Amino acid sequence: MSKRILVVIGGDAAGMSAASQVRRNDPQREIIAYERGEHTSYAACGMPYLAAGLVARPEDLVARRPEVFRERQNIQVHTRHEVIAIEPQSQRVRVRRLGDGLEFWQAYDDLLIATGALPIVPDLAEARAEGIHALKDLASGIALARDLEEAQPRRAVIIGGGYIGLEMAEALRLRGIETALVHRGPQVMSTLDVEMGALASHALVELGVQLYLNEKLAGFETQAGRVRAVVTDQRTLPADLVILGMGIRPNSDLAAAAGIPLGVRRAIRVNPRMQTETPQVWAAGDCIESLHRVSGQPTYAALGTVANKTGRIAGLNLTGVATAFPGVLGTAITKVGETEIARSGLQSRECEGLGLDYTAAQIASRTRAGYYPGTREIAVRLLADRGTGRLLGGQIVGGPGSGKRIDTIAAALTAGLTAQDLVDMDLSYAPPFSPVWDPVQTAARVLLRES
Amino acid sequence: MSKRILVVIGGDAAGMSAASQVRRNDPQREIIAYERGEHTSYAACGMPYLAAGLVARPEDLVARRPEVFRERQNIQVHTRHEVIAIEPQSQRVRVRRLGDGLEFWQAYDDLLIATGALPIVPDLAEARAEGIHALKDLASGIALARDLEEAQPRRAVIIGGGYIGLEMAEALRLRGIETALVHRGPQVMSTLDVEMGALASHALVELGVQLYLNEKLAGFETQAGRVRAVVTDQRTLPADLVILGMGIRPNSDLAAAAGIPLGVRRAIRVNPRMQTETPQVWAAGDCIESLHRVSGQPTYAALGTVANKTGRIAGLNLTGVATAFPGVLGTAITKVGETEIARSGLQSRECEGLGLDYTAAQIASRTRAGYYPGTREIAVRLLADRGTGRLLGGQIVGGPGSGKRIDTIAAALTAGLTAQDLVDMDLSYAPPFSPVWDPVQTAARVLLRES
Repeated sequence: MSKRILVVIGGDAAGMSAASQVRRNDPQREIIAYERGEHTSYAACGMPYLAAGLVARPEDLVARRPEVFRERQNIQVHTRHEVIAIEPQSQRVRVRRLGDGLEFWQAYDDLLIATGALPIVPDLAEARAEGIHALKDLASGIALARDLEEAQPRRAVIIGGGYIGLEMAEALRLRGIETALVHRGPQVMSTLDVEMGALASHALVELGVQLYLNEKLAGFETQAGRVRAVVTDQRTLPADLVILGMGIRPNSDLAAAAGIPLGVRRAIRVNPRMQTETPQVWAAGDCIESLHRVSGQPTYAALGTVANKTGRIAGLNLTGVATAFPGVLGTAITKVGETEIARSGLQSRECEGLGLDYTAAQIASRTRAGYYPGTREIAVRLLADRGTGRLLGGQIVGGPGSGKRIDTIAAALTAGLTAQDLVDMDLSYAPPFSPVWDPVQTAARVLLRES
Repeated sequence: MSKRILVVIGGDAAGMSAASQVRRNDPQREIIAYERGEHTSYAACGMPYLAAGLVARPEDLVARRPEVFRERQNIQVHTRHEVIAIEPQSQRVRVRRLGDGLEFWQAYDDLLIATGALPIVPDLAEARAEGIHALKDLASGIALARDLEEAQPRRAVIIGGGYIGLEMAEALRLRGIETALVHRGPQVMSTLDVEMGALASHALVELGVQLYLNEKLAGFETQAGRVRAVVTDQRTLPADLVILGMGIRPNSDLAAAAGIPLGVRRAIRVNPRMQTETPQVWAAGDCIESLHRVSGQPTYAALGTVANKTGRIAGLNLTGVATAFPGVLGTAITKVGETEIARSGLQSRECEGLGLDYTAAQIASRTRAGYYPGTREIAVRLLADRGTGRLLGGQIVGGPGSGKRIDTIAAALTAGLTAQDLVDMDLSYAPPFSPVWDPVQTAARVLLRES
């Protein structure tokens, strides 16, 4: 019998986590990975910091290069190879070598789809003009960094006030570029309740970003092939650089064309072992649907953490180690200047959509003891089920030391704890780290009083 | 019927939290609090930072002054009044007014003992010499700060490498004082496993502290009433300032004399509602025994967080709001220079004492993404039950951003989660905050592999 062949589509976090896990458990398996770009296992989340100049070289974002996979792990990584079709019936994929256009079939015993996500870009011809950037892969991050160096833009406009929008705003301000941000909602960070989003908006303004809320992109003005202005439904903003931070979508077209069933937001539907509904086809990372652990509903959570976790889970199950992925909480964190922003679980809008009878409490406290040098403001918002007190979600905006407190809330959500449990919890305290009642607990106390 | 009288012994965190909670729920209750010292509701944990000069004035450490309790909350606080006897049969206490020595009886319907803790001092006549300080109450903190200003000591010796010892070492080094620390154990921080304690020892050395481990205090040399050297079982260390950080003990002599039952380490035994075994007598704060939530055994946990929590719980139950205190995890945090140190749950020695079959894993990771500026080393150690994988305890030593991660572990311990649960947990990630796998999860992954 010949060796079992695993084909992996996509050479970033999910795909290569899975490949590495398979190799760890099975030294014999033939593992072949195809990556459309030039890079493997790069930190996509680090691209804004490359643009900011905080990370000196693109190579610093690469956790493991293709040759390292080849030489140390016997994983056959082929970069600049695009899989253009999947044939589940015959268990093979059609591959195009991008260098010379050569196409060939590759058979598989198991196939792992780890094609990631794609940035949403406006359906406008001018969106392809020079100076307009969307962060798709490391190559796009490198192109942006090069454009910043070569074109030396003076005025930038960011479309979209999500994670990428905020991180790029910080990056551009660090470079001293005059920066405007256009966001369609009433506050940036629509994964936060509007009261907390307002604090995030404020952090942008404090950084010197001109903020245009409740405003929609209408088009671009270009000159000699390069962008010169962003047109919104309310004004024209001069710009020699534009960042598209309009969200992402699962890169699932290849799966869809092969008849592999999709779910929420056209993400590939998988079971907790990362199997799709098509035999011998697995999927992991930014292209899959996840279970939300609080709502019990399917959700789309495209994050590096989830990609690493689901890649590892796929690899374990591919080698016979039965392991289930329990799902996500939608935990996320970012920063704008000194302001840290984090969230986990359900926000008010999601609770309402689920028909949950919930209560919310929001408090203002301090990151350290009030008398300790460097103490800063922190706002914590908690949501809980009105009947049972069970926590549903949490949001944090505050100075240094605020954001990672979301993990305490994430742990509580994981375990299905109540606001009372959080009040009773033995959290750490010393003046350089916290008031006696951690702000997370202060929010829980107010929640108890109000429920 | 006359108003019900609550008498509180002790005007700091536990006593005044209880008094405030009672007042909130019962506007009619007569509340009388006796405090031996001059201050109420002060942050005892802030005293090292007062000594360091990081907190400018002692008043900054006072959360609420006696007159505020009197005027805004109608709580009759009497400072410089010492309760010298309790008569549970006749429900009265004997009070001595320290100003003029006047003594009187005060009747109570309910009595709350919140007498706190006392520093352990060596049984040596020379320990009372000038220049030898133990941090007992705010007055002792003020006396130390004054001595530092007036005597301008050049060489200090700290006895004991626990929290106070480490925080005072940092404080004295900040003042540029040549500092030695003498500790009887093989590493400082005996609440950490020795491998982690070694990292704490290293942090002290990095700060320029001369560290003498496995060495015991033998005595002091004095001159004209002031200390001039510390004598250990191995050497004589010149010192014009000495800090005693030899631990604390519950201040329970008054309760013991009244026949109120004591428990572990002579701490007052209470039920989860903070009732002692003597009718109408309650206790809270640093003088009580607590339940350890992981071991299920009684323990002594003298911390500001526990004092605030148990004071509040006593106040709720005193006003008919039945609330149980579920106990402690022994969570604690501190810092030495830039090194943060935290722990929660059981350490190896405790697991062994309980006869638990446990497994431990210790990892070295980074506080931020490896490529992000300011990333620093972090060590995480986790302990879990070998059979079930249930987490038993955690310890962290690392750079800025490390310590508060202990709260994630504390939440997991609270909920009885396993190492697998921690690996699966949706914790927050962005390059300025964490590697993709939070170091806490990396430790859990290694623990899984080794169990």
